[in-house]
Amino acid sequence: MVTARLARFTEPLRLKSGAVINEYALAYETYGTLNSDRSNAVLICHALNASHHVAGWYAEDPKDIGWWDNMIGPGKPVDTNRFFVIGVNNLGGCHGSTGPCSINPQTGRPWGGSFPVITVEDWVAAQARLAEKLGIGQFAAVMGGSLGAMQSLQWTISHPEKLRHALVIACAPNLSAQNIAFNEVARQAIITDPDFHGGNYYEHGTKPQRGLRVARMVGHITYLSDDEMASKFGRQLKNGKLTYSFDTEFQIESYLRYQADKFSEYFDANTYLRITKALDYFDPAFEHGGNLSRAFARTQASFLVVSFTTDWRFSPERSREIVKALLDNRCRVTYAEIEAPHGHDAFLLDDERYHRLVTAYFDRIAAECGT
Amino acid sequence: MVTARLARFTEPLRLKSGAVINEYALAYETYGTLNSDRSNAVLICHALNASHHVAGWYAEDPKDIGWWDNMIGPGKPVDTNRFFVIGVNNLGGCHGSTGPCSINPQTGRPWGGSFPVITVEDWVAAQARLAEKLGIGQFAAVMGGSLGAMQSLQWTISHPEKLRHALVIACAPNLSAQNIAFNEVARQAIITDPDFHGGNYYEHGTKPQRGLRVARMVGHITYLSDDEMASKFGRQLKNGKLTYSFDTEFQIESYLRYQADKFSEYFDANTYLRITKALDYFDPAFEHGGNLSRAFARTQASFLVVSFTTDWRFSPERSREIVKALLDNRCRVTYAEIEAPHGHDAFLLDDERYHRLVTAYFDRIAAECGT
Repeated sequence: MVTARLARFTEPLRLKSGAVINEYALAYETYGTLNSDRSNAVLICHALNASHHVAGWYAEDPKDIGWWDNMIGPGKPVDTNRFFVIGVNNLGGCHGSTGPCSINPQTGRPWGGSFPVITVEDWVAAQARLAEKLGIGQFAAVMGGSLGAMQSLQWTISHPEKLRHALVIACAPNLSAQNIAFNEVARQAIITDPDFHGGNYYEHGTKPQRGLRVARMVGHITYLSDDEMASKFGRQLKNGKLTYSFDTEFQIESYLRYQADKFSEYFDANTYLRITKALDYFDPAFEHGGNLSRAFARTQASFLVVSFTTDWRFSPERSREIVKALLDNRCRVTYAEIEAPHGHDAFLLDDERYHRLVTAYFDRIAAECGT
Repeated sequence: MVTARLARFTEPLRLKSGAVINEYALAYETYGTLNSDRSNAVLICHALNASHHVAGWYAEDPKDIGWWDNMIGPGKPVDTNRFFVIGVNNLGGCHGSTGPCSINPQTGRPWGGSFPVITVEDWVAAQARLAEKLGIGQFAAVMGGSLGAMQSLQWTISHPEKLRHALVIACAPNLSAQNIAFNEVARQAIITDPDFHGGNYYEHGTKPQRGLRVARMVGHITYLSDDEMASKFGRQLKNGKLTYSFDTEFQIESYLRYQADKFSEYFDANTYLRITKALDYFDPAFEHGGNLSRAFARTQASFLVVSFTTDWRFSPERSREIVKALLDNRCRVTYAEIEAPHGHDAFLLDDERYHRLVTAYFDRIAAECGT
């Protein structure tokens, strides 16, 4: 059983875009106990549609289980009997942290379309302030999958001295043109929805749900492998026979529509837009003339880098680029390419080899910090 | 220089769905001359967004060059000095053949949303009537790429005695769950556009252009290979520097938006919807308990099957399924897997090895029919 908390910050945060957020709040949760020398803290960074609710459940809603509950908890790979784990909803989010649907204190109205573009660097800067507030000078580890892993990487660049380990799972050092293209489709679906109103839909009493549905469907396809879709759905018919109509004909259509409907009910379109932009912009090599190795010049952490064979969104090749750049800097890197059928989503799933690997890695971290 | 013609049919056509179209017209073009024994006719079947305008140009618009003009014409791989080539706009199309934007003679109003779902089998049935009208008892070859190639395959099943060769390029024996999923995203984008009006947008004076734009963007991504996108666009910025806004930031976004805008101007959304359904439904093995080999039991044609290494929409693996099923029936099959970087779109491009192969294959056909 866990409780979400809110940390308020009143020191202005200058974002990478140049915009400044004067005050903001971050929703977070903690699991386990910080040890006496404050050496066992682990930060979990979330990806696209997740939140600070990483593990456990709420007293008022026992069905609302954290998104990485198979990974984090008592006796789990990230063992909360030994580690003090923090989950945080990123700035710009829609799960309690300040974001587009929050009231902008300067205007008294929702930020809406005026909420700035956020980058991975900005998230890490905000997370670092939360760490300070919680009295954590150095994390035992910062961990994430996908966009969460980009934050792990960025921690080793922005605050090399503030973490001992970075877990970088199902990641890429930047988005490919194809990745950006899929994001752009999602954005165009949302932005051209007549209910979007330039992002100020809260005040119009509308929601660009049609656009968000389509955006989610596109995204969802890229999270699953072709093989996984084939074995889960193949060409199975929804109603056992063909109807030759625009009703749902195949199971895969039904699944996608259901997922999209659900998502468009609870997720905020403005947040979705900004998260896709954060993904697009992430590119640590950019400021070093495209040289990724130079981006990690000050990095001190040890790394566990994990990729999944059927992940076509961020393929193992992309993880190997990261590993290569880290090795160029003589970083300590453990790299594992896990044979898993589930595509990009594998990082969220309970794969035995993957979980054994993370367990072993955290055993090592635990030994180091004597927990 | 070519001229489009219109063939009118008044005998009702019963579609696979059970719906009946009482009268319809097909737009078509011909290139070259039918020889005296009518043995040199080649039918070109089009894919998603193409038309009967396969080669050459129109007197009134010399810039409007046929979509497969690099393949078909005097001295080209399909040499119109030797072959009589026919291009036809499929039933349900929006380039002159009867389709959703045509007037339904029974109501005096555009068909719109009431235009039936069409299948590859229906297209082949309609094409067969056109062949009859043109006095062609047997084609030297039926040829297509992608969805066009599905029509070639269907010809060998529906009318095994009416063609001697089938060219099946960048094809699959049916869509995978992932392929269907992408189509469903496209359809949902169109259908949920408020300007769609259940397909009756002609009468509302609107066009679901927002939806069609998004649909086209999704499709476009699947036609190009990841590598091709990387080498063509990579992470190139549109304006040389980052703006941290929702304006076009990367070249790939600009390219996709441009393509989508262009497409949504000239293409009909109802036609697009029906073409994606025809793709979804194509599955010759379905009526044979999933056994593709049995689908070709009556097939008599010889085959050229071509796939492209970087085609992730219809990968070489899928072409090999076709080849295997044909060989099970002791069909004569030439199969080539062309190493090309361009993804699915490769079938439309001027790749030297690919064109040499088609040239050689048509030399063989020419020798057989003495042209």
